[in-house]
Amino acid sequence: MTIDAADPTSRSDDYGTAFPNSRKVHVEGTRGIRVPMREIALSGGEPPLRVPDTSGPRETNVREGLSSVRADWVQSRSIEETGRTVDPAEDLPSGLHRSTFRGTAPVTQMFYARRGEVTPEMEFVALREGMDPDLVREEVARGRAIIPANINHPELEPTIIGRKFRVKINANIGNSVVRSSIDDEVEKLRWATLWGADTIMDLSTGADIHETREWILRNSPVPVGTVPIYQALEKVGGVPEELTWEVYRDTLVEQAEQGVDYFTVHAGVRLPFVPLTANRVTGIVSRGGSIMAKWCLAHHEESFLYTRFREICEIMRAYDVSFSLGDGLRPGSLADANDEAQFAELRTQGELTRIAWELDVQTMCEGPGHVPMHLIQENMDKQLDWCDEAPFYTLGPLTTDIAPGYDHITSAIGAAQIGWYGTAMLCYVTPKEHLGLPDRDDVKQGVIAYRIAAHAADLAKGHPGAREWDDALSRARFEFRWRDQFNLSLDPETALAYHDETLPAEGAKVAHFCSMCGPRFCSMKISHDIRDAAAAGMKEKAREFRESGGGIYVPEPEGAES
Amino acid sequence: MTIDAADPTSRSDDYGTAFPNSRKVHVEGTRGIRVPMREIALSGGEPPLRVPDTSGPRETNVREGLSSVRADWVQSRSIEETGRTVDPAEDLPSGLHRSTFRGTAPVTQMFYARRGEVTPEMEFVALREGMDPDLVREEVARGRAIIPANINHPELEPTIIGRKFRVKINANIGNSVVRSSIDDEVEKLRWATLWGADTIMDLSTGADIHETREWILRNSPVPVGTVPIYQALEKVGGVPEELTWEVYRDTLVEQAEQGVDYFTVHAGVRLPFVPLTANRVTGIVSRGGSIMAKWCLAHHEESFLYTRFREICEIMRAYDVSFSLGDGLRPGSLADANDEAQFAELRTQGELTRIAWELDVQTMCEGPGHVPMHLIQENMDKQLDWCDEAPFYTLGPLTTDIAPGYDHITSAIGAAQIGWYGTAMLCYVTPKEHLGLPDRDDVKQGVIAYRIAAHAADLAKGHPGAREWDDALSRARFEFRWRDQFNLSLDPETALAYHDETLPAEGAKVAHFCSMCGPRFCSMKISHDIRDAAAAGMKEKAREFRESGGGIYVPEPEGAES
Repeated sequence: MTIDAADPTSRSDDYGTAFPNSRKVHVEGTRGIRVPMREIALSGGEPPLRVPDTSGPRETNVREGLSSVRADWVQSRSIEETGRTVDPAEDLPSGLHRSTFRGTAPVTQMFYARRGEVTPEMEFVALREGMDPDLVREEVARGRAIIPANINHPELEPTIIGRKFRVKINANIGNSVVRSSIDDEVEKLRWATLWGADTIMDLSTGADIHETREWILRNSPVPVGTVPIYQALEKVGGVPEELTWEVYRDTLVEQAEQGVDYFTVHAGVRLPFVPLTANRVTGIVSRGGSIMAKWCLAHHEESFLYTRFREICEIMRAYDVSFSLGDGLRPGSLADANDEAQFAELRTQGELTRIAWELDVQTMCEGPGHVPMHLIQENMDKQLDWCDEAPFYTLGPLTTDIAPGYDHITSAIGAAQIGWYGTAMLCYVTPKEHLGLPDRDDVKQGVIAYRIAAHAADLAKGHPGAREWDDALSRARFEFRWRDQFNLSLDPETALAYHDETLPAEGAKVAHFCSMCGPRFCSMKISHDIRDAAAAGMKEKAREFRESGGGIYVPEPEGAES
Repeated sequence: MTIDAADPTSRSDDYGTAFPNSRKVHVEGTRGIRVPMREIALSGGEPPLRVPDTSGPRETNVREGLSSVRADWVQSRSIEETGRTVDPAEDLPSGLHRSTFRGTAPVTQMFYARRGEVTPEMEFVALREGMDPDLVREEVARGRAIIPANINHPELEPTIIGRKFRVKINANIGNSVVRSSIDDEVEKLRWATLWGADTIMDLSTGADIHETREWILRNSPVPVGTVPIYQALEKVGGVPEELTWEVYRDTLVEQAEQGVDYFTVHAGVRLPFVPLTANRVTGIVSRGGSIMAKWCLAHHEESFLYTRFREICEIMRAYDVSFSLGDGLRPGSLADANDEAQFAELRTQGELTRIAWELDVQTMCEGPGHVPMHLIQENMDKQLDWCDEAPFYTLGPLTTDIAPGYDHITSAIGAAQIGWYGTAMLCYVTPKEHLGLPDRDDVKQGVIAYRIAAHAADLAKGHPGAREWDDALSRARFEFRWRDQFNLSLDPETALAYHDETLPAEGAKVAHFCSMCGPRFCSMKISHDIRDAAAAGMKEKAREFRESGGGIYVPEPEGAES
């Protein structure tokens, strides 16, 4: 585990260092369910605030993996132990070995939901969201929400992805042939979930793809997604034309056995759509999409992901792997946004969603990409309509192309907006997008930018309880409880460090001013005087003013919220 | 001038270092008008791209100030030389001394526009925007746009603020009693305009307030705004109750003589509105607003800014200082957004706008603040309605309160949105907001985040020419012209540095792949193959597919943009 001590944002991934005055607490359910939350202790007589916690058990040994909290839940299902079709690497620590199962009947959350059963996973996410377990069940049954939870990922603390619930964020990790190691990737997983990633995708394309994934899954408290075509391509020497259904199928099984919770499958990249991209400014920018496009072109044949889609569903429902129907033809520039190729694929995603649902396979749909603000709503509207309200999972979208180095910001703007319109999960973008592989600090920057976007969307949707956090922080700000203000930030360490750059003295942590205005000009201090004056009768004065009318403006109640 | 060599983003403010392969060019107008643009040279047979340039003349001596490009334009107006009511500081370099004028009749751009005159300033901004000078004149005459341009700011390269034009951004600088020096502030001005600030506000509250402003004005190619009440308060020992109309009036004249282009005046903070803030979560968060609220309370008297508003207008029109009608009661938290206090002030801003227009004074209105996404549109709609379409100038808004340390991002989300809805200028927020005074890198981070928000808004509004920049960068990306991609970025230096972290070799600058996917998986490379295939007859194939129908999905043209 490499930690760069010179970088203040990477000093430690220790929970207590990252979140001073926070502790992990557990909300208890039935059946031994214990849902983690982070509880922030506050001063000034304020009750502690509980916020979502995706960081998983922290005091663990990566060579042992996390404890198998779901093992008992899964055992009661129609499953059989199978062993692995691909043996683990010889040097895999014994602590990371797990029994492997497959369903002898459908074992998906959608299957159980449709027959009226509230699974422990549903109860878990209901407690996590503060929602009724039966609402969870209904949404999963209807296909409007998914709980990605492979039966071979017992370490998982389940989460729900659907637009009636908190907007989730995904962090991509994964090595390429150019750079990165297994250690780096496991550390990125722990780091991303510490800061709030709700799911992670392992997009490794380089060596040791199987082994990297094993380490990640055994240490991941959050759902893990992959793009199986990447590994399938490795198996055929990196030549797309050499891909076959059989290689792909075996890869799905291999990854399902390891416990991957959702697969990105680019089954909507169909042969007739490929020419639609020929006149684009940036062609096809999805790796999976371009691989399949090349295969289709080389063989002049319809994609096997499309023609074999039912067989793919049958594999996935035996493990409860969820679909993330890929958007291989998403626009890679504003110029290509909302074009014929993109929407042809989106409509096909809808067609495939309905097939997956026939087979009880949980499904979400991936979306763009690069889209200017005024074209974002159309993406959401069409997706809801064409894909029957299956959860939407978008990358950004980036709202301008002119800021490489800052695409966490160009895309957080679009992400917040599309989250408000109804997207259920936002795939993060780091400052390194388009330029290089994200390092540890880039991962953090991407996660924080997307936690902001997701929370802004929750607020705009009026999600119950979302405002509580903002209000707690605002009260701390107004009452000059500086420590509380830092501790309530998404990134307490950075907030504290920024404050201390100008006012490092410990006394400034209780001062009734800050360096922005200095002690004499503090508007909040003056506001306290006004409040005191109000208590001493200003309300009476105000009423006089209002009632007197006579040339003085009387505010109209209908123009106000409170 | 302090430059921290250890910080790569602060290595130099030199134009050539910041913008490799760029040069400053000038578009020539009549009357000796020369409008600066930045021209980015590109490879691959691409024509150079011209983008806005706010950086002003760079090879200048800060002790001499900038050349007086507007001096001749102003001389032809009805003005008299007056000298200064407040003498310059003794140690002010002689190179910074300027003659001082006041109008003997109205000298505002609005006055000239209304009588049908296209001033050099109007021609200048028309060339800058690529718009018709007569449209500029009409918009200024109608009050829908302003050109802040004090006759005593001859160094100014004028800019226009109005919703038919490019969305502008403002960067706040200024010292407080806690920290910062004149040198720092002048350097921040040069730095902020280098990266793209269209105007700057000097919010100094500490010592040497007059002298700091003199240095800033003489070196500023962009409009400079101030909040005169800050200096007035200094003059009465920092005690709001001691403020008088006379002290304030003299401060307006003193600053108008120096050349300040727009004044924030919190004349909408009226006595009857003060009690409306008593039950807010964060009270009054505007410094100017809280000062005036305290004055009103202490005297139980209507604000002199309100009662003397016509006198204020008369002073301002003699120099052509524009109003930025302050939003002293803006919400400081989501909890207080769109409340009675805020909207009572906004309606008053409309009332004041109409008075200012009677006297030919150019006027814009300031807006919030902290507003969740779903309440932003209401701010814009009410402002357009109540303030007769005077330009709106908003701070953010911040769309969540939970991310101190990242408020450039929480607010860029809201800024992009409100810019799209019609806000003419966005006041930047730096990562230090709520925590401390921004340093050099914070200023850059704030400016870049807001350049992103403003450009995203221009794109969404369909501003002519806005997409050209995005498309040039996207083509460079698709054609693996890495150097062009970096140079077209808002921050070329950072884009290059991020790329080089993973692929430092010079050869990688021409490679047909990057570190994200490595050489084998590059989707863009595959897209080129597809394009080649398309050229070789795939279009024919596609037509066959479409025409055959028979079970194969035919994309519907109405669902697509292109």
